[in-house]
Amino acid sequence: MSFTLAEARAADAADPLRPLRDRFHLPEGLIYLDGNSLGPLPKAAVARQQALIAEEWGGELIRSWNSRDWISMPQRVGAKIAPLIGAMPHEVLVADSTSVNLFKLLVAAARLSERKVLLSESGNFHTDLHIASGVADLLGLDLDIAPRAQVESRIGPDTNLLLLTHVHYKTAERFDIARITARAREAGAMTVWDLSHSVGAVPLHLNDSGAELAVGCGYKYLNGGPGAPAFLYVAEHLQEWLVSPLRGWMGHAEPFAFTDDYAPARGIDRFLAGTPPILGLAALESGVDAFEGVTMERLWTKSRAMFDVFHALMEQRCPELACISPRAEEQRGSHISFAHPHAFEICQALIAADVIGDFRAPDVVRFGLTPLYLRFEDIWTGVDRLAAIMASESWRDPKYAVRGKVT
Amino acid sequence: MSFTLAEARAADAADPLRPLRDRFHLPEGLIYLDGNSLGPLPKAAVARQQALIAEEWGGELIRSWNSRDWISMPQRVGAKIAPLIGAMPHEVLVADSTSVNLFKLLVAAARLSERKVLLSESGNFHTDLHIASGVADLLGLDLDIAPRAQVESRIGPDTNLLLLTHVHYKTAERFDIARITARAREAGAMTVWDLSHSVGAVPLHLNDSGAELAVGCGYKYLNGGPGAPAFLYVAEHLQEWLVSPLRGWMGHAEPFAFTDDYAPARGIDRFLAGTPPILGLAALESGVDAFEGVTMERLWTKSRAMFDVFHALMEQRCPELACISPRAEEQRGSHISFAHPHAFEICQALIAADVIGDFRAPDVVRFGLTPLYLRFEDIWTGVDRLAAIMASESWRDPKYAVRGKVT
Repeated sequence: MSFTLAEARAADAADPLRPLRDRFHLPEGLIYLDGNSLGPLPKAAVARQQALIAEEWGGELIRSWNSRDWISMPQRVGAKIAPLIGAMPHEVLVADSTSVNLFKLLVAAARLSERKVLLSESGNFHTDLHIASGVADLLGLDLDIAPRAQVESRIGPDTNLLLLTHVHYKTAERFDIARITARAREAGAMTVWDLSHSVGAVPLHLNDSGAELAVGCGYKYLNGGPGAPAFLYVAEHLQEWLVSPLRGWMGHAEPFAFTDDYAPARGIDRFLAGTPPILGLAALESGVDAFEGVTMERLWTKSRAMFDVFHALMEQRCPELACISPRAEEQRGSHISFAHPHAFEICQALIAADVIGDFRAPDVVRFGLTPLYLRFEDIWTGVDRLAAIMASESWRDPKYAVRGKVT
Repeated sequence: MSFTLAEARAADAADPLRPLRDRFHLPEGLIYLDGNSLGPLPKAAVARQQALIAEEWGGELIRSWNSRDWISMPQRVGAKIAPLIGAMPHEVLVADSTSVNLFKLLVAAARLSERKVLLSESGNFHTDLHIASGVADLLGLDLDIAPRAQVESRIGPDTNLLLLTHVHYKTAERFDIARITARAREAGAMTVWDLSHSVGAVPLHLNDSGAELAVGCGYKYLNGGPGAPAFLYVAEHLQEWLVSPLRGWMGHAEPFAFTDDYAPARGIDRFLAGTPPILGLAALESGVDAFEGVTMERLWTKSRAMFDVFHALMEQRCPELACISPRAEEQRGSHISFAHPHAFEICQALIAADVIGDFRAPDVVRFGLTPLYLRFEDIWTGVDRLAAIMASESWRDPKYAVRGKVT
């Protein structure tokens, strides 16, 4: 397949989602293929944060907890995420970080059973494995970290909980939530899904898939800003059975009764812990609001087309970079990754050429295909600049080997 | 004692801290006596948030983790809090909420000992008691909630951990950190201090007091904004002995090595969990920066003078409100509280008169004396408006009995 710049521009002109790009601030000339790591700034967030700071905090002060309904933001923003993941509004809550939410759900769910094995995948995003190891250590569970191909077959009569990431952060490989949740349930085990690399990118139907528990990130495809609060999902029928190990006052049945005794709030509210982070919640709300009026199915259709173009252009122009993401659409998420022994330097050279992707140790360069705001022209130009870097071997300049704190 | 408005103004004119008020946005005409619940907006935060949103997130995007050093903010802001609490810079870290940080320290510390009792105070701020109950439940500890007067005598050979709040959120009663920490240590127990109602208000000398572990709130006297991230303190000699139960990737020895195995970071960094909340951290940094150039001792001197004035005016003009805060300066924090059977309605009538204090169930009205920005004139006017409400009994208007979600 050959795909020219003119064809890319024609595809953009025909793209019904093209106007959505105007909802974001995207620096002129920058090809931003890292929205799966940090989503760009929604334009609405600028005015919202300004009003929040100047009027709500500065002017109304403490009264804003009631008058501006700060107190309901964890539920309100959760309810806005719900349609993106196929959940009911009262099944989603925004709180804390993905790591902390994972801890809450893993501990709460594991304690429902006497079984001793917490099963996950080797090479899963490491915070998931580390949090799981902490949970196993606390509860006296055995942590079984299996290679991806063996995870399903390792589900057995001792399996208490299965922890999987829906779309793999590095390869973009995707698990089938419905099939694996059902398989685990048949064996008497529950599954916790990490949706960090799928929410806002891949259609999700948690209710229809029989998903029981999930967490996800706010600052990737949801565009919630750096270190945005995360969300958690608890299927309605489970909510009254689970008790958070982090019994903060905001998860209490009566937070403002100031009683010594703990009584969990009804429903998902019990998974709140401390005071909600209002600045972060407001930015995340702006990010989620940028999905207004568009279905995940339409976004996914565009993502698939972008993947095909990206993949074809790379095969043609940068064959020395080996694609490690699955071709088949039902087997992957919305990013595309390539292996190269000098992936780090190539990534740095690309950034210097105003094409932002990211490096994932030890040898992967990763590109996020974010259909809300990316153009086919961006895809074409990104690959074009990468091809120039590969052809000239400019990535060999020693300056591109210098590592920052975050690499 | 009689203290006139003219005398209040004279006290303000002579106040060497008077210029600090200009560091904050305070609405004209509003008497804000609730900075112990939500500190006001530091003027510097307006520009800082604007640049953070537009330039760092909007313009630099993902690169800001390195180029704007977002990644070091938990340590940098922690190091700025350190001098306010008498700690070394590398002993303080900003992360998560007070509740979550309490959980981390309680679990990590409790697991160093075989002892079975977690001791705290009845009537302690309830999130502390609830988090402690969750920890006790997880680790199989006995939670001993003792009346304040009996806490010290309950420390015994079975005491694993003591959890106390330095300044009581309701009464402002203050514990002696040095004496109680030593008393517990003699008995072989560690102490975790919650500094939420003292940090930024009362001089703290954690190192000199032999304090081992502490947490504190970012949105009260530190002026970090609604739901600001909290901090934790771990004395240097303990840092390598404690392992957080929340093993998020940011607390890993090599967060960007993406390894399956968990290895805690050296020092206090191991108490990070998920990705740091950058918007909240930046606002908190602005709040802490507002303390620049002033010592806690000078602030405390002004706080004491304000307490004496407030107390005397209330005795004279509102004798039906009974002060429940200790008179002796070494026995209290920087707020003053009064009991009245209709505290809720009185508080609402005060708010309607543009005097913001807060109600604490069941019968307390509480006023924060925040010397960074309050004037003696504010104290005088606040009591004057309260006296008018009490004299006219305007608080009996039924509209003042309507409760919001946050009361």
